[in-house]
Amino acid sequence: MDIGMIGLGKMGANMASRLLKGGHRVVAFDIDEASIQAVERSGAEGARTLNALIEELEAPRLVWVMVPSGKITDDTIKKAADLLEPGDTVIDGGNSNYKDSIRRGKELSDRGIHFIDVGTSGGVWGLTEGYSLMIGGETEFVEKYRAIFETLAPAPDKGWGHVGPAGSGHFVKMIHNGIEYGLMQAYAEGFEILRAKKDFDLSLSQIAKIWQDGSVVRSWLLDLTASALAEDENLSGIKAWVPDSGEGRWTVFEAIDLDVAAPIITLSLQRRIRSREEEAFADKLLAAMRNKFGGHEVKLEK
Amino acid sequence: MDIGMIGLGKMGANMASRLLKGGHRVVAFDIDEASIQAVERSGAEGARTLNALIEELEAPRLVWVMVPSGKITDDTIKKAADLLEPGDTVIDGGNSNYKDSIRRGKELSDRGIHFIDVGTSGGVWGLTEGYSLMIGGETEFVEKYRAIFETLAPAPDKGWGHVGPAGSGHFVKMIHNGIEYGLMQAYAEGFEILRAKKDFDLSLSQIAKIWQDGSVVRSWLLDLTASALAEDENLSGIKAWVPDSGEGRWTVFEAIDLDVAAPIITLSLQRRIRSREEEAFADKLLAAMRNKFGGHEVKLEK
Repeated sequence: MDIGMIGLGKMGANMASRLLKGGHRVVAFDIDEASIQAVERSGAEGARTLNALIEELEAPRLVWVMVPSGKITDDTIKKAADLLEPGDTVIDGGNSNYKDSIRRGKELSDRGIHFIDVGTSGGVWGLTEGYSLMIGGETEFVEKYRAIFETLAPAPDKGWGHVGPAGSGHFVKMIHNGIEYGLMQAYAEGFEILRAKKDFDLSLSQIAKIWQDGSVVRSWLLDLTASALAEDENLSGIKAWVPDSGEGRWTVFEAIDLDVAAPIITLSLQRRIRSREEEAFADKLLAAMRNKFGGHEVKLEK
Repeated sequence: MDIGMIGLGKMGANMASRLLKGGHRVVAFDIDEASIQAVERSGAEGARTLNALIEELEAPRLVWVMVPSGKITDDTIKKAADLLEPGDTVIDGGNSNYKDSIRRGKELSDRGIHFIDVGTSGGVWGLTEGYSLMIGGETEFVEKYRAIFETLAPAPDKGWGHVGPAGSGHFVKMIHNGIEYGLMQAYAEGFEILRAKKDFDLSLSQIAKIWQDGSVVRSWLLDLTASALAEDENLSGIKAWVPDSGEGRWTVFEAIDLDVAAPIITLSLQRRIRSREEEAFADKLLAAMRNKFGGHEVKLEK
């Protein structure tokens, strides 16, 4: 099939490569010239403007937007919509908030443009292993572009699915990421306890490797953990500072909105927030209170 | 090699089968006659008493104890030790507390008997897929029985390892289970949020299946989750009541002893405890307090 790829960051560029290998025609645009040249070397047709990309595709067009979530996605879809025609289809494959996707689906639909939201998981490994695709939108158009999804997925019949109407793809991806926060935190805590048990002089890399086969905790995240620990058991040089990119927060908000208790996902997000607080005021306050009621020692700042 | 297997529950019986298929000679004892007859049909030599089991083996003997942790393990090892000779080896493959294993290792060592503690993961799948074995003990004797471990493991060079001195095998298995609690809780919360989102009419079994390939959250536990949801999306007939068998508690105690914050593992255990409280007194008290300060409604017991 013919597809226009807008946004050639790590995800977009790799997806373009996978599509090209799958025999599709890819017209690709990015604001960065070097990124365009890189995908041209993989066989994509580079477009220097959004306009040029749209012109290179025959109607009804398929355009895949793969840019950072939020304002950039909004601006990109808005600009593209002004150039597209009724009957064309826009796919948002980024990490958009599902509420934005519902709104965008409606806005595009009002102009006769179809919208599909694809929650995409797989990171830098997707190029070789395939992407997990959680797809929201109208059945007719999801089916129409089945060949694209079959190529991007790990296998034509695996790792992708049409989960519901517009917005549901990004909703499912959001929950996927919320779960990911909890899984990561569980491993992280377990390995920290192992490391703290000095009596046994345990090798974290050895243990991670043992667990990769036959254990109940085996997983792809454990494989990545084992790989990181094999490179350096002490993770020297890596600061204990963990960003969060939004999906975890949205999952927590959603759980509250739906009256579902999700303490582990919530606390996993909060642990990340805590990792970034250099001198937590709450901890100063606890120390001060202990000092007030019991005369307990307070460490003074230097 | 020759091995005596004491305890022919689900784990012990399956391990005996795997050892027999691997070409080892297994003499097997259980207090339950039917369990003995079952492993005899697999090719094991049944022993009707502990004494008979010991007599069937030539010194230096290897005896694998696979019975419930706690008093039964203590009693079994004590009885076996009275019958064994210096130079023999006892393996405890159950879910013993590592502190007990350190003590038992010392007690046996004082009598010239070697002790190896093996944290064993894999459950009912171990028979076909192999067991993950985390092994504590003296290097000489772990090496001596390498052939046994290579047979039980998923592959001779995979899924097993000698992690440290006596006790360390059960310590690592305990942390493995603590991590397992957190992983399970993360999936559980994510699927509950998906289910609560009525707008999208999502299929939990479809989503679990999609995630099995290419996603960041893919794992063996997800495979089991997908299998359970494929059988019945609503899990009808399963009460929301979750036992815990001890390892999670020990992990939480250990984290506190080691001054390591492990909030996710801790809270995952507490969620299980909460699942078993029919009418939590704390919740009654919260309702009563809201009523006192704000005149808020209180639901009355019927």
